[in-house]
Amino acid sequence: MHIPAPVLNPPFNVTRSSHVVLTVRDLDVSRTFYTDLVGLVVSDADRETVWLRGREESAHHSLVLRKGATPNCQRLGFRVLTDDDILKAKDHFDSIGVPAQIVDVPYQGKTLHVRDAIGMPVEFTSSMPFRERMFMAYDQYRGAAAQRIDHWQIQAQNVRRAFDFWHPLGFRTSEYTYSEVPGGGVDLWGVWMQRKGNPHDQVFTNGPGPRLHHFAYLLRDTADLMHACDVAGALGLGRRLERGPGRHGISGAMFIYFRDPDGHRIEMFNTHYQNIDLEPPIGWSLSNPKRADQWGMPARAKWFNEATVFEGAEPVEPDLAADVPTLEKFLEMTD
Amino acid sequence: MHIPAPVLNPPFNVTRSSHVVLTVRDLDVSRTFYTDLVGLVVSDADRETVWLRGREESAHHSLVLRKGATPNCQRLGFRVLTDDDILKAKDHFDSIGVPAQIVDVPYQGKTLHVRDAIGMPVEFTSSMPFRERMFMAYDQYRGAAAQRIDHWQIQAQNVRRAFDFWHPLGFRTSEYTYSEVPGGGVDLWGVWMQRKGNPHDQVFTNGPGPRLHHFAYLLRDTADLMHACDVAGALGLGRRLERGPGRHGISGAMFIYFRDPDGHRIEMFNTHYQNIDLEPPIGWSLSNPKRADQWGMPARAKWFNEATVFEGAEPVEPDLAADVPTLEKFLEMTD
Amino acid sequence: MHIPAPVLNPPFNVTRSSHVVLTVRDLDVSRTFYTDLVGLVVSDADRETVWLRGREESAHHSLVLRKGATPNCQRLGFRVLTDDDILKAKDHFDSIGVPAQIVDVPYQGKTLHVRDAIGMPVEFTSSMPFRERMFMAYDQYRGAAAQRIDHWQIQAQNVRRAFDFWHPLGFRTSEYTYSEVPGGGVDLWGVWMQRKGNPHDQVFTNGPGPRLHHFAYLLRDTADLMHACDVAGALGLGRRLERGPGRHGISGAMFIYFRDPDGHRIEMFNTHYQNIDLEPPIGWSLSNPKRADQWGMPARAKWFNEATVFEGAEPVEPDLAADVPTLEKFLEMTD
Amino acid sequence: MHIPAPVLNPPFNVTRSSHVVLTVRDLDVSRTFYTDLVGLVVSDADRETVWLRGREESAHHSLVLRKGATPNCQRLGFRVLTDDDILKAKDHFDSIGVPAQIVDVPYQGKTLHVRDAIGMPVEFTSSMPFRERMFMAYDQYRGAAAQRIDHWQIQAQNVRRAFDFWHPLGFRTSEYTYSEVPGGGVDLWGVWMQRKGNPHDQVFTNGPGPRLHHFAYLLRDTADLMHACDVAGALGLGRRLERGPGRHGISGAMFIYFRDPDGHRIEMFNTHYQNIDLEPPIGWSLSNPKRADQWGMPARAKWFNEATVFEGAEPVEPDLAADVPTLEKFLEMTD
Ligand SMILES: [Ca+2]
Ligand SMILES: [Fe+2]
Ligand SMILES: [Fe+2]
Ligand SMILES: [Fe+2]
Ligand SMILES: [Fe+2]
Repeated sequence: MHIPAPVLNPPFNVTRSSHVVLTVRDLDVSRTFYTDLVGLVVSDADRETVWLRGREESAHHSLVLRKGATPNCQRLGFRVLTDDDILKAKDHFDSIGVPAQIVDVPYQGKTLHVRDAIGMPVEFTSSMPFRERMFMAYDQYRGAAAQRIDHWQIQAQNVRRAFDFWHPLGFRTSEYTYSEVPGGGVDLWGVWMQRKGNPHDQVFTNGPGPRLHHFAYLLRDTADLMHACDVAGALGLGRRLERGPGRHGISGAMFIYFRDPDGHRIEMFNTHYQNIDLEPPIGWSLSNPKRADQWGMPARAKWFNEATVFEGAEPVEPDLAADVPTLEKFLEMTD
Repeated sequence: MHIPAPVLNPPFNVTRSSHVVLTVRDLDVSRTFYTDLVGLVVSDADRETVWLRGREESAHHSLVLRKGATPNCQRLGFRVLTDDDILKAKDHFDSIGVPAQIVDVPYQGKTLHVRDAIGMPVEFTSSMPFRERMFMAYDQYRGAAAQRIDHWQIQAQNVRRAFDFWHPLGFRTSEYTYSEVPGGGVDLWGVWMQRKGNPHDQVFTNGPGPRLHHFAYLLRDTADLMHACDVAGALGLGRRLERGPGRHGISGAMFIYFRDPDGHRIEMFNTHYQNIDLEPPIGWSLSNPKRADQWGMPARAKWFNEATVFEGAEPVEPDLAADVPTLEKFLEMTD
Repeated sequence: MHIPAPVLNPPFNVTRSSHVVLTVRDLDVSRTFYTDLVGLVVSDADRETVWLRGREESAHHSLVLRKGATPNCQRLGFRVLTDDDILKAKDHFDSIGVPAQIVDVPYQGKTLHVRDAIGMPVEFTSSMPFRERMFMAYDQYRGAAAQRIDHWQIQAQNVRRAFDFWHPLGFRTSEYTYSEVPGGGVDLWGVWMQRKGNPHDQVFTNGPGPRLHHFAYLLRDTADLMHACDVAGALGLGRRLERGPGRHGISGAMFIYFRDPDGHRIEMFNTHYQNIDLEPPIGWSLSNPKRADQWGMPARAKWFNEATVFEGAEPVEPDLAADVPTLEKFLEMTD
Repeated sequence: MHIPAPVLNPPFNVTRSSHVVLTVRDLDVSRTFYTDLVGLVVSDADRETVWLRGREESAHHSLVLRKGATPNCQRLGFRVLTDDDILKAKDHFDSIGVPAQIVDVPYQGKTLHVRDAIGMPVEFTSSMPFRERMFMAYDQYRGAAAQRIDHWQIQAQNVRRAFDFWHPLGFRTSEYTYSEVPGGGVDLWGVWMQRKGNPHDQVFTNGPGPRLHHFAYLLRDTADLMHACDVAGALGLGRRLERGPGRHGISGAMFIYFRDPDGHRIEMFNTHYQNIDLEPPIGWSLSNPKRADQWGMPARAKWFNEATVFEGAEPVEPDLAADVPTLEKFLEMTD
């Protein structure tokens, strides 16, 4: 058993991954990318910021684009159930010596800023203004018609350290990748962690970190996923498709990955599973290639190597030395 | 054997059903219906007329809407291969005593006007201006994104008479419905006739005629078909869906039928079969309900009873007395 | 505000609707229906019982078929998080005077039997044996390939009374239907209640009750939903499709409803929304027909009037007199 | 204008590409590949041969697998309309000095064997026994549920020479690739030729030839295409997916390419267009990468370089020197 039992009574109640705040260089170009290709809805916009949400989302924003000279990820946001959970979170972080500030953020209720154990800037918020769910305005669907934010994936310089920070906060592990260490024990290469009852709210994988590898929106179905590719082609963005369409082993999702105009990576996917019951996490040996791809070819090196830097967090090399199974190596081996 | 052998060397070469000319009362309202729900592309428009084509069509128009006080169908258009076929068609109709005039029609090459044996006004044309196929402009897809015109269905006061007119012109029968006549022979209730190598370019079924029961566009797939329904709901046109989604036995098509703002009926469908080889037509006994619906419930009475009148052709009662298996009767029987 | 604030700290932690136990007359015929058309997986079977689960489910069963002379619903099962919740539930029901017994049930952990305020027999259980998720065994997909159980809908003789029983147990209301009462207040016609973070674990609607109106499985997408209809047709079960395909307003789901060989009604649906954040429930006036159908025609009378009786609970007439908007009435009005 | 006008009155009437005859080393393994992954139906089988057809096909076979030590393509088969066309074909080939023999072939009517100008062995046949179309037996669908054969693609040592052989037989060019020759004229790199009214019955592209690059079956839709990939993964054949899913510019098809157990390449695709009217072919400059892929990455070198040898035809190097835009080069350039 490589993963400890889940913490059922965490110090405060995180309910789900909620939003991503990105710096982008050209607000108009990025806005068009996210509305016309990804299919998000604009909740609000001013000269410096665009707030977007998925077709079905009633929370004000799941993606915030902020104009800036240097593309990065400013912050990742979690939702907690009530204002009271923000106070409990503050108490918790104070008690373990993690700096935490309650701050004012536009279109958000009580919000708490923290950096996690690998240096990733996050915030917790208890509420946002409601906006009408737009998922039945089918005549307004565009591109992938992304329905809602689901999760993000982080490159961690030390996956175990990230795990040890988030596990006590009630994040449960659905799946993980490991390798046996000669002499006993395992190295942890990736952990898929969740609060909302499906395979993941956030994922940590080994790599130069902390970096945001990708954030992910749920699509309705395969038809929308393929339509997104076709729309990308029609918009002249066909080369921005960096990986996929494909099918993961871990989580079972059908996926595509695009790079946005600043190189931020967005996954759009469909069909993973419900994970509410208490059940043992699924361990994948690092040597099993089907964890990544059930069919087709592996991801190209760029997919493994490039990621978005977090504001105020210089990435460092990972503690585990990775030998990444890239498309480039695959092509050489199977020539 | 209820259907004679196909005519392999007809007097002229009709290649396919090509276009429908409808009178509509409000040009803007109808244009919006056909662009936003059906997803057609406007090729040209003036104050009196809108010319539309399917997403993949390179011919200038497959649907012509003309402003007028009384909704009807002005004419159905077939394509022939070359100008020479128009001249051969003229000779043929002259020789059998059917009035035929060569006329000028906007955006069409040489065109010949004729009324068929049941009084239906048709035209044959050999060419149209080319327009770019728009099927890869996926970012511009709307509603059902109808790809191309496929066929139409005519209520005929005498199906046999219609058959006897079109069969010698090389129209092959893919499927038909019949009932045994006591004492021998069969009554013909419907014939599915084709020139282009799939189940139908035109269909004649028993009913007050001649009337245009519906015309049909091909969709890419099930997802587009269901999206059309959803878009209709979003546009406030959800009650215009008169029948379906369902699956025909004859032709094997998945279908939906909408009524347009003037009550003209359009079918949108997917997946029928190729029918190029010379093979015996499929006969369906009138007593087999699966010919109409492989699952679900029958069509409502309106679907059977209402249809579009042709210009200059007062419908008359059919020679065969029909007992139509409506939804209304089905509900009574299965209460 | 027609619905009170949600109870955030209920006496025990129900996590989701879990399973349905049905009496069927012919075990083989029913098993075939649920494997070949619905696409469920058999977890275990003996001479008297078949235990089935959805394609992605790791819990041992979500549907239990038991051989018996009189088709009914023996019991509905909820999952709680831990064994401790069963003990807390027992305490809770004891304290409010609701009889509750801890019982032994095959393939289930600690289980508690209770009848709710409208007489519906339910059970709570904390665990089941794990079985492998079969959702990536795509070569074994059959029919609708139903992925997991999602919810059930109950006809209640008094919706308010059911609500008052379940609301204090932490069931949150996502949507509801109401009518204004002359003189003030509202009548509650239906409540969509949930624990697992989507629109519903269970629904109560006004009608002769308690009766199980339907239980529902989630499908992957529209293509599977339509394939289910086609498979039904091919299996000679096409008339078992009682309603749909259609799109609900409430929950936004695309749906089909089938009657099983004993008349039990199963819904299969796709695409509703996440409902984790605390937000006001959506109220639908009873006079808005789009709550039921975004497009197409209303459900037939049978859909409204027929339902499965619970074991040991003689249905009684509802306290509110319903005027149900059936297909039959719709056809009369729109003739 | 790089392509001469189509021949409207060819010496005999080829109606469509009809069947492929392959040598395979293990008949059982290959049969399983084509039934369980591709989803074809077995029409007949003996110890040496399996005859298969698509789900909707009524002709006896579109794929013939013959047991043999050395995998190759024995022959490609075209359908002509009538027996009389076989006699006319014999006369035609006699008159131009191309050896042509009338032969007996199981499950085929009158059949004529010929080698074309680049050495490819073909046959023409006028009939096959009918089998029931199986496309509405939805409960029996497996894998991709391939509906019907559509076309094949040939690597030709000289595309112009192949064109000059097939053009006079009435094959019309829908699309082609070319490069300007310094000093005037164009080199022809690929021609998409058709008889049946869509973009292609056969394609010739520059390469060591004659070799069969791939043959192609039509699928119903995107959902079936992606399901084929998923089924391949589940069957342990996920690495056999050599290219795709992707979207061609030429023909507009969504595609996947698999290698069968002997390395024969099969394409499965959806959505191209109707091409019945006489219209100018579409020319693509060789320098436009979107002709091959509207989005995503190019095909790997294997896809360009490997192909099936024809029986009795030693491939020779092409007359034009190709610089093939492979995935391998793309990855180097975009690192
Ligand atoms: Ca689909
Ligand atoms: Fe992801
Ligand atoms: Fe039709
Ligand atoms: Fe339901
Ligand atoms: Fe191809």
